[in-house]
Amino acid sequence: MRDEWIYKSGVGSSSCSCGLKKDGVPDLALIHFSKPAVWTACFTKNRCAGAPVIHAKSLLKRNGRASFLLINSGNANAATGRKGLDDIDFLTKNIGNLSGVDPNEIIVSSTGVIGEPLPKELIADAIPELLQNCSDFDESVARAIMTTDTKSKISRMSFESCGRNFHIWAMAKGAGMIHPHLATMLVFIITDFPLRQSGMHGLLKEVMDYSFNKISVDGDMSTNDSVFLFSIGESRSEISDFDFKNALLRVAKELSQQILEDGEGVHKVVNIFVKNALSVDDAKAAAGRIANSELVKTAIYGEDPNWGRIYAAAGASGAQFDPLSVSIFFDDKPACENGVKSKRYDETAISKIMKNDHFSITIDLGAGTASYNMFTTDLSYEYIKINASYRS
Amino acid sequence: MRDEWIYKSGVGSSSCSCGLKKDGVPDLALIHFSKPAVWTACFTKNRCAGAPVIHAKSLLKRNGRASFLLINSGNANAATGRKGLDDIDFLTKNIGNLSGVDPNEIIVSSTGVIGEPLPKELIADAIPELLQNCSDFDESVARAIMTTDTKSKISRMSFESCGRNFHIWAMAKGAGMIHPHLATMLVFIITDFPLRQSGMHGLLKEVMDYSFNKISVDGDMSTNDSVFLFSIGESRSEISDFDFKNALLRVAKELSQQILEDGEGVHKVVNIFVKNALSVDDAKAAAGRIANSELVKTAIYGEDPNWGRIYAAAGASGAQFDPLSVSIFFDDKPACENGVKSKRYDETAISKIMKNDHFSITIDLGAGTASYNMFTTDLSYEYIKINASYRS
Repeated sequence: MRDEWIYKSGVGSSSCSCGLKKDGVPDLALIHFSKPAVWTACFTKNRCAGAPVIHAKSLLKRNGRASFLLINSGNANAATGRKGLDDIDFLTKNIGNLSGVDPNEIIVSSTGVIGEPLPKELIADAIPELLQNCSDFDESVARAIMTTDTKSKISRMSFESCGRNFHIWAMAKGAGMIHPHLATMLVFIITDFPLRQSGMHGLLKEVMDYSFNKISVDGDMSTNDSVFLFSIGESRSEISDFDFKNALLRVAKELSQQILEDGEGVHKVVNIFVKNALSVDDAKAAAGRIANSELVKTAIYGEDPNWGRIYAAAGASGAQFDPLSVSIFFDDKPACENGVKSKRYDETAISKIMKNDHFSITIDLGAGTASYNMFTTDLSYEYIKINASYRS
Repeated sequence: MRDEWIYKSGVGSSSCSCGLKKDGVPDLALIHFSKPAVWTACFTKNRCAGAPVIHAKSLLKRNGRASFLLINSGNANAATGRKGLDDIDFLTKNIGNLSGVDPNEIIVSSTGVIGEPLPKELIADAIPELLQNCSDFDESVARAIMTTDTKSKISRMSFESCGRNFHIWAMAKGAGMIHPHLATMLVFIITDFPLRQSGMHGLLKEVMDYSFNKISVDGDMSTNDSVFLFSIGESRSEISDFDFKNALLRVAKELSQQILEDGEGVHKVVNIFVKNALSVDDAKAAAGRIANSELVKTAIYGEDPNWGRIYAAAGASGAQFDPLSVSIFFDDKPACENGVKSKRYDETAISKIMKNDHFSITIDLGAGTASYNMFTTDLSYEYIKINASYRS
């Protein structure tokens, strides 16, 4: 599939296998903006952020323009100290020398194993060929950024604003460690909608709170997670970003779902909806605790309508409510009402709902009017298998 | 095995299968203090505390004396609303009528499925026989309180204080949902050391912080968890409780280890030791985050020296430290020093350590002088299997 707009906008890409991963699997991608893009990003809050995050943060402060984006999988370049940053400098200078571009306009992003030095020579050796092949835009770059993902994740959208057509193309990698405040997730979003650097970050952050920050696979938070937004549109200050924000939210939600559905060992994606909480913070606390409870997640895997675990997780969340005001529903079927097993409880009906790939669990705390939802997944044998020997 | 001291002190016990669990498995236990014991307890902080916790808390406020302790497994009597409390009243009155004891001296404790009404008639029908058989003390009561436990858990200790011999006998049930602030854990401790009601709670709480509050199996927190302490010693105000506290701590630590080792699907117990943190709160936060990380726990299960996950979990904990000051050791073998892979890294040696049932992971944050440790376990296929279909 070829996106004409992105090709016409002077965006090129290429990918290859440089040997970071075994068996010749693609592990390196390059994206080129022939006219520098304005960009912003949201980064992991992990104190042990990897070198690529430290580097990109500093780039963003100095220079919000990007000409190249180099992404590798197979090695996170995290817990690599000063050397990790030196390795990035080496690579950006390398691309700079070969292309004539200012290294301050070159972003490097990495995902993979933590704590191993980046094999920078393998990457440097592949750069000339990557540069040569990136005159056209090829979305197979989305394959080169995968780690335990089983599918590449792409979302595209076109939308109208002020009578003109605009576009968004985005790719992501996800799988394990998906949790609010990012976790092992890399997202790259490109649009031809004109954005001003000053307003981009607030806009991206707002969209994140309604998309990527609502998903949880295993409650962990990684060292490298980043969501990048690039605009190659010509600056037209008179355009409101309302239509763009809606389109961006749709793209971000679609990628979030793709990440969840391809989570490690995931069979089911469940919407945990907490309503009538005393405050949004309480609703978030309850949704988060339920979404991350191993006991809830194993019950979802086992298709076991064990609502008592949901009730117990809500009680452990710190949210304020009267236990005798709590009701719990699987889709529209009541399991618990007023803190006890519902008189309308229908195990057959609820079991049937739980056999679906997607369903909702609604927890009504009966304490106020605030609500919040999060998406969680089941916790399965496969998750254990994948993560017991990730490095081997 | 028969504890002469407990028998001589007028403590009796009996157990039976009343039908709460399938296949005639023991599920009901009664302990009788012929001379009322003074008691205290620490309870779950779960807002949705089960009826037995609500009832026992109110008993403790009214009357710190106990003549009977009735414990059932197979049903937690949690999420049962007003009816749950009425059922407990029904049972304590029943025992009171048959024995002539004040119902305010009768404690009921329950563990098992949440959200099903307590089959109180099954229990009531078994009470006459339990009462009849509890003239002697029989520690098989520890079997009747098990849920997914594979072994009964008992600890006994004798110690000297002021030239006299004293004793502690204690039993526990644990398995899943073991986490600081209790989780699915019931502990009952009986001593002939004289304790005054006024000082008991502080003493128990202090010991808890160094034992049961340091263990984590799956990071969940249950509705029913309680640790009870009963003293049947004759009040002797001149005795300091120093020797008792030490003995109690040994008992509590021993039961904690038994609970961990018998955790659901557990093969390994690992001591997570965080040192040189800026504050004890930071050390606790880092230890807790590492101990509860699914990625760390699956790596432990897979015997994979993936120290980067430990490093990432420390970074996600909110503790303050310089990532370039962090060192990580498996027992005495360095994996990470100054935030990068150790130059002395020896994968063969670390893999060998990880094959053990017990080992330590030390995280030196290099930020201050505070330390804290917690015990965690691996996360295995069996955990998923047990919890995917707990109710069936």
